[in-house]
Amino acid sequence: MSTIFSKIISGEIPCYKLAEDDRFLAFLDIRPVNPGHTLVIPKQEVDYLFDLEDDLLGGILLFARPIARALAEVVPCKKVGLMVAGLEVPHAHVHLIPFSAIPELTFSRASAMEPDRLEQIAAAVRARLSGGE
Amino acid sequence: MSTIFSKIISGEIPCYKLAEDDRFLAFLDIRPVNPGHTLVIPKQEVDYLFDLEDDLLGGILLFARPIARALAEVVPCKKVGLMVAGLEVPHAHVHLIPFSAIPELTFSRASAMEPDRLEQIAAAVRARLSGGE
Repeated sequence: MSTIFSKIISGEIPCYKLAEDDRFLAFLDIRPVNPGHTLVIPKQEVDYLFDLEDDLLGGILLFARPIARALAEVVPCKKVGLMVAGLEVPHAHVHLIPFSAIPELTFSRASAMEPDRLEQIAAAVRARLSGGE
Repeated sequence: MSTIFSKIISGEIPCYKLAEDDRFLAFLDIRPVNPGHTLVIPKQEVDYLFDLEDDLLGGILLFARPIARALAEVVPCKKVGLMVAGLEVPHAHVHLIPFSAIPELTFSRASAMEPDRLEQIAAAVRARLSGGE
Protein backbone atom coordinates (compact mmCIF):
# COMPACT_ATOMS: atom_id res chain seq x y z
CA MET A 1 0.00 0.00 0.00
CA SER A 2 1.30 3.38 -0.97
CA THR A 3 2.24 5.70 1.89
CA ILE A 4 1.85 9.47 1.76
CA PHE A 5 5.58 9.67 1.07
CA SER A 6 5.31 7.45 -2.01
CA LYS A 7 2.55 9.75 -3.25
CA ILE A 8 4.85 12.73 -2.68
CA ILE A 9 7.66 10.98 -4.56
CA SER A 10 5.36 10.22 -7.50
CA GLY A 11 4.06 13.81 -7.55
CA GLU A 12 0.50 12.73 -6.76
CA ILE A 13 0.72 14.88 -3.63
CA PRO A 14 2.64 18.16 -3.96
CA CYS A 15 5.48 19.13 -1.61
CA TYR A 16 7.85 21.97 -0.85
CA LYS A 17 10.76 20.21 -2.51
CA LEU A 18 14.32 21.14 -1.59
CA ALA A 19 16.39 18.54 -3.43
CA GLU A 20 16.25 15.11 -4.99
CA ASP A 21 18.39 12.61 -6.81
CA ASP A 22 17.72 9.10 -8.06
CA ARG A 23 17.72 7.67 -4.51
CA PHE A 24 16.50 10.40 -2.13
CA LEU A 25 14.06 13.30 -1.82
CA ALA A 26 14.07 16.20 0.66
CA PHE A 27 11.09 18.44 1.31
CA LEU A 28 9.79 20.73 4.05
CA ASP A 29 7.60 19.30 6.80
CA ILE A 30 4.34 21.27 6.65
CA ARG A 31 4.00 20.94 10.43
CA PRO A 32 7.50 22.04 11.43
CA VAL A 33 9.00 21.79 14.88
CA ASN A 34 11.04 24.84 13.84
CA PRO A 35 11.21 26.82 10.57
CA GLY A 36 13.17 24.83 7.99
CA HIS A 37 12.21 21.42 9.44
CA THR A 38 12.89 19.05 6.56
CA LEU A 39 12.14 15.40 5.78
CA VAL A 40 14.76 13.38 3.93
CA ILE A 41 13.43 10.10 2.55
CA PRO A 42 14.71 7.29 0.37
CA LYS A 43 12.61 6.86 -2.76
CA GLN A 44 12.43 3.15 -2.06
CA GLU A 45 9.55 2.41 0.34
CA VAL A 46 11.11 0.74 3.38
CA ASP A 47 9.46 1.14 6.79
CA TYR A 48 12.39 1.11 9.20
CA LEU A 49 15.54 3.18 8.73
CA PHE A 50 17.80 0.35 9.84
CA ASP A 51 16.23 -1.98 7.24
CA LEU A 52 17.48 0.19 4.37
CA GLU A 53 20.03 -1.50 2.14
CA ASP A 54 23.65 -0.49 2.80
CA ASP A 55 23.83 1.91 -0.11
CA LEU A 56 20.82 3.89 1.14
CA LEU A 57 21.63 3.76 4.86
CA GLY A 58 25.17 4.86 4.09
CA GLY A 59 24.06 7.52 1.62
CA ILE A 60 21.21 9.28 3.40
CA LEU A 61 23.34 11.54 5.63
CA LEU A 62 25.68 12.37 2.74
CA PHE A 63 22.60 13.40 0.73
CA ALA A 64 21.34 15.41 3.72
CA ARG A 65 24.59 17.31 4.34
CA PRO A 66 24.29 20.10 1.72
CA ILE A 67 20.64 20.54 2.65
CA ALA A 68 21.52 20.91 6.33
CA ARG A 69 24.17 23.48 5.41
CA ALA A 70 21.74 25.44 3.24
CA LEU A 71 19.08 25.35 5.97
CA ALA A 72 21.55 26.79 8.48
CA GLU A 73 22.11 29.75 6.17
CA VAL A 74 18.41 30.35 5.59
CA VAL A 75 16.85 30.08 9.06
CA PRO A 76 18.27 31.27 12.38
CA CYS A 77 19.77 28.33 14.32
CA LYS A 78 22.88 27.14 16.10
CA LYS A 79 22.94 23.75 14.37
CA VAL A 80 20.75 21.44 12.34
CA GLY A 81 19.67 18.52 14.52
CA LEU A 82 18.44 15.18 13.38
CA MET A 83 15.62 12.95 14.55
CA VAL A 84 14.30 9.60 13.37
CA ALA A 85 11.16 8.16 14.93
CA GLY A 86 9.12 6.33 12.33
CA LEU A 87 5.99 5.23 14.14
CA GLU A 88 3.56 7.30 12.08
CA VAL A 89 4.43 6.83 8.39
CA PRO A 90 5.82 3.38 7.48
CA HIS A 91 8.44 4.83 5.13
CA ALA A 92 11.85 5.60 6.62
CA HIS A 93 12.51 9.32 7.04
CA VAL A 94 15.10 11.53 8.68
CA HIS A 95 13.98 14.83 10.20
CA LEU A 96 16.46 17.68 9.83
CA ILE A 97 15.55 20.29 12.43
CA PRO A 98 17.33 23.65 12.66
CA PHE A 99 17.51 24.48 16.39
CA SER A 100 19.27 26.62 18.95
CA ALA A 101 18.44 24.89 22.26
CA ILE A 102 17.99 21.23 23.22
CA PRO A 103 14.33 21.54 24.37
CA GLU A 104 13.37 22.53 20.82
CA LEU A 105 14.05 18.97 19.63
CA THR A 106 10.67 17.43 20.37
CA PHE A 107 7.82 16.56 18.03
CA SER A 108 5.34 18.04 20.50
CA ARG A 109 6.33 21.47 19.16
CA ALA A 110 5.15 20.67 15.62
CA SER A 111 2.50 23.03 14.26
CA ALA A 112 1.17 24.03 10.88
CA MET A 113 3.00 26.74 8.94
CA GLU A 114 1.49 29.09 6.37
CA PRO A 115 2.04 27.97 2.73
CA ASP A 116 3.60 31.33 1.82
CA ARG A 117 6.24 30.97 4.52
CA LEU A 118 6.96 27.35 3.55
CA GLU A 119 7.41 28.35 -0.09
CA GLN A 120 9.64 31.26 0.93
CA ILE A 121 11.93 28.95 2.93
CA ALA A 122 11.95 26.28 0.22
CA ALA A 123 12.86 28.82 -2.45
CA ALA A 124 15.69 30.22 -0.31
CA VAL A 125 17.11 26.74 0.37
CA ARG A 126 16.89 25.77 -3.31
CA ALA A 127 18.70 28.99 -4.26
CA ARG A 128 21.54 28.15 -1.84
CA LEU A 129 21.75 24.60 -3.13
CA SER A 130 21.97 25.76 -6.71
CA GLY A 131 24.76 28.18 -5.84
CA GLY A 132 22.60 31.29 -6.01
CA GLU A 133 22.86 33.86 -3.20
CA MET B 1 41.14 20.45 24.02
CA SER B 2 40.04 16.94 24.84
CA THR B 3 36.30 16.40 25.24
CA ILE B 4 34.79 13.84 27.61
CA PHE B 5 34.24 11.62 24.57
CA SER B 6 37.93 11.67 23.64
CA LYS B 7 38.69 10.63 27.23
CA ILE B 8 36.22 7.76 26.87
CA ILE B 9 37.84 6.72 23.57
CA SER B 10 41.29 6.75 25.16
CA GLY B 11 40.05 4.77 28.16
CA GLU B 12 40.86 7.58 30.58
CA ILE B 13 37.16 7.63 31.52
CA PRO B 14 35.40 4.24 31.65
CA CYS B 15 32.20 3.51 29.73
CA TYR B 16 29.60 0.80 29.24
CA LYS B 17 31.03 -0.16 25.87
CA LEU B 18 28.82 -1.95 23.34
CA ALA B 19 30.99 -2.04 20.23
CA GLU B 20 33.93 -0.39 18.53
CA ASP B 21 36.00 -0.55 15.41
CA ASP B 22 38.84 1.59 14.11
CA ARG B 23 36.51 4.48 13.30
CA PHE B 24 33.60 4.38 15.76
CA LEU B 25 32.68 3.62 19.36
CA ALA B 26 29.25 2.87 20.86
CA PHE B 27 28.49 2.98 24.59
CA LEU B 28 25.49 3.43 26.86
CA ASP B 29 24.40 6.91 27.91
CA ILE B 30 24.54 6.93 31.72
CA ARG B 31 21.58 9.33 31.78
CA PRO B 32 19.28 7.48 29.41
CA VAL B 33 16.06 8.81 27.95
CA ASN B 34 14.97 5.15 27.88
CA PRO B 35 16.79 1.92 28.83
CA GLY B 36 19.34 1.07 26.15
CA HIS B 37 19.95 4.70 25.13
CA THR B 38 23.28 4.54 23.31
CA LEU B 39 25.80 7.05 22.01
CA VAL B 40 27.57 6.32 18.75
CA ILE B 41 30.60 8.51 18.13
CA PRO B 42 33.39 8.75 15.59
CA LYS B 43 36.81 8.34 17.18
CA GLN B 44 37.95 11.43 15.33
CA GLU B 45 37.06 14.55 17.33
CA VAL B 46 34.84 16.65 15.08
CA ASP B 47 32.25 18.94 16.66
CA TYR B 48 29.42 18.91 14.12
CA LEU B 49 27.99 15.76 12.57
CA PHE B 50 27.72 17.33 9.14
CA ASP B 51 31.41 18.32 9.26
CA LEU B 52 32.49 14.66 9.40
CA GLU B 53 34.46 13.50 6.38
CA ASP B 54 32.44 11.49 3.84
CA ASP B 55 33.74 8.13 5.01
CA LEU B 56 32.62 8.78 8.59
CA LEU B 57 29.31 10.49 7.80
CA GLY B 58 28.47 7.67 5.40
CA GLY B 59 29.66 4.99 7.79
CA ILE B 60 28.13 5.98 11.11
CA LEU B 61 24.62 4.60 10.49
CA LEU B 62 26.04 1.38 9.01
CA PHE B 63 28.11 0.97 12.18
CA ALA B 64 25.02 1.73 14.27
CA ARG B 65 22.74 -0.78 12.53
CA PRO B 66 23.75 -4.02 14.32
CA ILE B 67 23.77 -2.16 17.64
CA ALA B 68 20.24 -0.86 17.02
CA ARG B 69 19.12 -4.40 16.18
CA ALA B 70 20.72 -5.83 19.31
CA LEU B 71 19.18 -3.08 21.47
CA ALA B 72 15.72 -3.90 20.13
CA GLU B 73 16.18 -7.50 21.27
CA VAL B 74 17.40 -6.53 24.73
CA VAL B 75 15.02 -3.77 25.84
CA PRO B 76 11.28 -3.49 25.23
CA CYS B 77 10.59 -1.05 22.36
CA LYS B 78 8.76 -0.68 19.06
CA LYS B 79 11.75 0.78 17.25
CA VAL B 80 15.14 2.32 17.88
CA GLY B 81 14.92 6.04 17.19
CA LEU B 82 17.75 8.39 16.48
CA MET B 83 18.56 11.89 17.63
CA VAL B 84 21.46 14.24 16.99
CA ALA B 85 21.65 17.53 18.85
CA GLY B 86 25.25 18.40 19.63
CA LEU B 87 25.10 21.58 21.67
CA GLU B 88 26.58 20.10 24.85
CA VAL B 89 29.66 18.06 23.92
CA PRO B 90 31.64 19.40 20.92
CA HIS B 91 32.24 15.91 19.50
CA ALA B 92 29.68 14.59 17.01
CA HIS B 93 27.44 11.87 18.44
CA VAL B 94 24.32 10.00 17.41
CA HIS B 95 21.82 8.98 20.10
CA LEU B 96 20.16 5.62 19.52
CA ILE B 97 17.01 5.58 21.65
CA PRO B 98 14.79 2.50 21.94
CA PHE B 99 11.22 3.81 22.18
CA SER B 100 7.59 2.86 21.80
CA ALA B 101 5.80 6.23 21.53
CA ILE B 102 6.78 9.55 19.95
CA PRO B 103 6.68 11.63 23.18
CA GLU B 104 9.49 9.46 24.57
CA LEU B 105 11.93 11.04 22.12
CA THR B 106 12.95 14.07 24.13
CA PHE B 107 16.11 14.76 26.11
CA SER B 108 14.03 16.18 28.96
CA ARG B 109 13.32 12.56 29.98
CA ALA B 110 17.00 11.78 30.60
CA SER B 111 17.79 10.59 34.12
CA ALA B 112 20.57 8.69 35.83
CA MET B 113 20.47 4.88 35.76
CA GLU B 114 22.00 2.51 38.33
CA PRO B 115 25.43 1.13 37.31
CA ASP B 116 24.24 -2.46 37.80
CA ARG B 117 21.37 -1.96 35.35
CA LEU B 118 23.67 -0.25 32.82
CA GLU B 119 26.16 -3.10 33.03
CA GLN B 120 23.36 -5.66 32.67
CA ILE B 121 22.08 -4.00 29.49
CA ALA B 122 25.59 -3.55 28.08
CA ALA B 123 26.43 -7.21 28.69
CA ALA B 124 23.20 -8.37 27.03
CA VAL B 125 23.82 -6.18 23.96
CA ARG B 126 27.45 -7.33 23.67
CA ALA B 127 26.28 -10.96 23.89
CA ARG B 128 23.82 -10.39 21.03
CA LEU B 129 26.49 -8.64 18.95
CA SER B 130 28.93 -11.47 19.42
CA GLY B 131 26.29 -13.99 18.41
CA GLY B 132 25.81 -15.30 21.94
CA GLU B 133 22.39 -16.24 23.36
